[in-house]
Amino acid sequence: MDYQRIFAEAIERLHAEGRYRVFIDILRNKGAFPNARCFAGHNGPKPITVWCSNDYLAMGQHPKVIAAMEEALHDVGAGSGGTRNISGNSHYHIELENELADLHGKEGALLFTSGYISNEATLSTLGKILPGCIIFSDALNHASMIAGIRNSGCEKQVFRHNDLAHLEELLAAAPAEAPKLIAFESVYSMDGDVAPIAAICDLADKYQAITYLDEVHAVGMYGPRGGGISDRDAVASRVTIIEGTLAKAIGVMGGYIAADRNIIDVIRSYAPGFIFTTSLSPVLVAGALASVRHLKASSAERDAQQKHAALLKQIFTEAKLPVMPSTTHIVPLLVGDPVKAKRISDILLAEYGIYVQPINYPTVPRGTERLRFTPGPAHDEKMMRELAQALVEIWDRLEMRWAA
Amino acid sequence: MDYQRIFAEAIERLHAEGRYRVFIDILRNKGAFPNARCFAGHNGPKPITVWCSNDYLAMGQHPKVIAAMEEALHDVGAGSGGTRNISGNSHYHIELENELADLHGKEGALLFTSGYISNEATLSTLGKILPGCIIFSDALNHASMIAGIRNSGCEKQVFRHNDLAHLEELLAAAPAEAPKLIAFESVYSMDGDVAPIAAICDLADKYQAITYLDEVHAVGMYGPRGGGISDRDAVASRVTIIEGTLAKAIGVMGGYIAADRNIIDVIRSYAPGFIFTTSLSPVLVAGALASVRHLKASSAERDAQQKHAALLKQIFTEAKLPVMPSTTHIVPLLVGDPVKAKRISDILLAEYGIYVQPINYPTVPRGTERLRFTPGPAHDEKMMRELAQALVEIWDRLEMRWAA
Ligand SMILES: Cc1ncc(COP(=O)(O)O)c(C=O)c1O
Ligand SMILES: Cc1ncc(COP(=O)(O)O)c(C=O)c1O
Repeated sequence: MDYQRIFAEAIERLHAEGRYRVFIDILRNKGAFPNARCFAGHNGPKPITVWCSNDYLAMGQHPKVIAAMEEALHDVGAGSGGTRNISGNSHYHIELENELADLHGKEGALLFTSGYISNEATLSTLGKILPGCIIFSDALNHASMIAGIRNSGCEKQVFRHNDLAHLEELLAAAPAEAPKLIAFESVYSMDGDVAPIAAICDLADKYQAITYLDEVHAVGMYGPRGGGISDRDAVASRVTIIEGTLAKAIGVMGGYIAADRNIIDVIRSYAPGFIFTTSLSPVLVAGALASVRHLKASSAERDAQQKHAALLKQIFTEAKLPVMPSTTHIVPLLVGDPVKAKRISDILLAEYGIYVQPINYPTVPRGTERLRFTPGPAHDEKMMRELAQALVEIWDRLEMRWAA
Repeated sequence: MDYQRIFAEAIERLHAEGRYRVFIDILRNKGAFPNARCFAGHNGPKPITVWCSNDYLAMGQHPKVIAAMEEALHDVGAGSGGTRNISGNSHYHIELENELADLHGKEGALLFTSGYISNEATLSTLGKILPGCIIFSDALNHASMIAGIRNSGCEKQVFRHNDLAHLEELLAAAPAEAPKLIAFESVYSMDGDVAPIAAICDLADKYQAITYLDEVHAVGMYGPRGGGISDRDAVASRVTIIEGTLAKAIGVMGGYIAADRNIIDVIRSYAPGFIFTTSLSPVLVAGALASVRHLKASSAERDAQQKHAALLKQIFTEAKLPVMPSTTHIVPLLVGDPVKAKRISDILLAEYGIYVQPINYPTVPRGTERLRFTPGPAHDEKMMRELAQALVEIWDRLEMRWAA
């Protein structure tokens, strides 16, 4: 059995397709984000500007967040020391769960070590608790939801992305007496478009389905208190389960669900991905708590992010760069080729000190490879103009396609 | 479709079996562990002694760990802001992976957000990369390995716990040309017994299998540099993949694997549970780095833990408490009934300020419900004598079975 050959071939396939990934070695500069230092291929760290962070609102360096983490570090120490059930349940965890339940107007919330595992654990467990359940899944759902749905063992029906007619067709064709769950996202992170939550809830009511909404790319950023698109659209009470992350706009790390008390209790009691793992470090929980509380009360970060995203889209459009349609803070630029996407990213980093990661298959469909920019409150107009100018020079040099 | 009834019934089943879990609301006191504060059912926090933490060596409050985390917090901020591939790869991550590879004498290492997801992601991905692979799994393997094996879609053969003859029987019966993987743990955390690693590697050689070893309850605690039982037994180089956690003896949070370069590259490139999730916070990584480095050089914590574990076993034995056989730092006391296990734990907390969690099904088989004590360097003889005295009083009161 030549295991080495099998492993080597698996790697070779990635090189052959031009999608072997090399990690960029960076350190961000707290207090000066999006400025950072890059280590790769230089003598010592080189200053760079980060354009592809999902610390969308720069809360990862907010003084309140840092102070809360420092305090927890000195009060209780580094890790939780156990699973939630065995000595790893701290007062911080309970407080944050209460805060998140309130954010989404739900009876309860449950913390996980990541958004990934919150999706995987919740969906796979729901599928087992609801015998014969059929899961209706948006075609662009995130890998973590896909993993949870697969691991649930349920029948899966994929509806075309944001296509209500197709979703209804599938719901109508399913047996009336089968439990049904509709799983979808609010902001789709690679395109920046938004789901019609209210209309999906209408269908759920009509066909007696429950709904599972991933708000990972919206929590903190939309709605008067940062509860996500379901907060902005005032439909949170109609969604059965809302899932989110503490690692993007909240700026720290971890994931959660919010739902009614019984559902929280079921997942808490049955999901292996919740039960059999050390709970989040209280240091992270304290930071997330400060961040969620701040964003509930302050809209300054959200407003600045929206303003900067609109400005960057405008600057790209004026420069005839092929910016993809997006109704949110996410600004994708179409490249359409994995090797070119990587090449542009490499030039930006090496020659301009600008860091944006190429997004290739399997994160996006082949042929839609892109650069994905995430302007935040701290990206100013000068940075944007420098970025656009660098891109225009590279677009010229590589003879790339311009926008019409 | 009455979803509420289905959820309510799932909860009712737990109550009926006496295994509905209530989380204990505590805060540990940094610098004074195992002392902590408990919030439940009191007016304000009440002081308690923690006897069931998996912060085995109290590294979660080690000054070097706290200082490293504080420094990282002020240098780069709270979260990493992205997946490893998209802006979430920091210099800390690379340094820790190098340190862990060195700890286990492997070419490379790969960080995950938890030990749970490192097992799930690695085993499920290996199964997909090796077509037709058969996975041989110890009967007492942890839930996270079981999840990974199930999600791999591979054929699974369960061998009786630590039973070499049974393992060989199964290996011999399998088709010679099929890829084979043997998955097992070093220290089994609920019983405290140890796998015969060298003998299992002999079988792997004989039947051309690769080996996957979970050292979660041994890393930091065994071997001259804390590399685990495979370090103590000097067999690490014979094991294909070693998996560990940063959340137990290391005192922080996160998980990892260590293996040769190609395997690391395959998992890094193909495992959804690695790719599609925000990377560990650099604050955690910095703390884990300081902890691993300290434990590589210092055996004081390991020696004190072993001394205290031996002393506690002796004190329990002398008191005729039914201590279960264990060759490691884990000290389980047999109760054999889920309701009684919970009752003893409740009395200890309410009347004696002693916190030890009852361990019930599904964490251990029904009928073997137990209390599981984890004495560490900071649990002194006075605490142990108080603990034993409290247990003796409760054993009397509840008319429990004594050791022969
Ligand atoms: C839509 C979506 N859901 C879930 C996740 C996972 O969240 P986390 O990074 O907290 O694991 C991500 C990205 O990481 C995501 O894009
Ligand atoms: C044997 C074993 N493997 C893996 C894990 C998971 O590690 P982590 O807590 O880092 O998720 C645990 C316990 O939590 C365990 O006991």
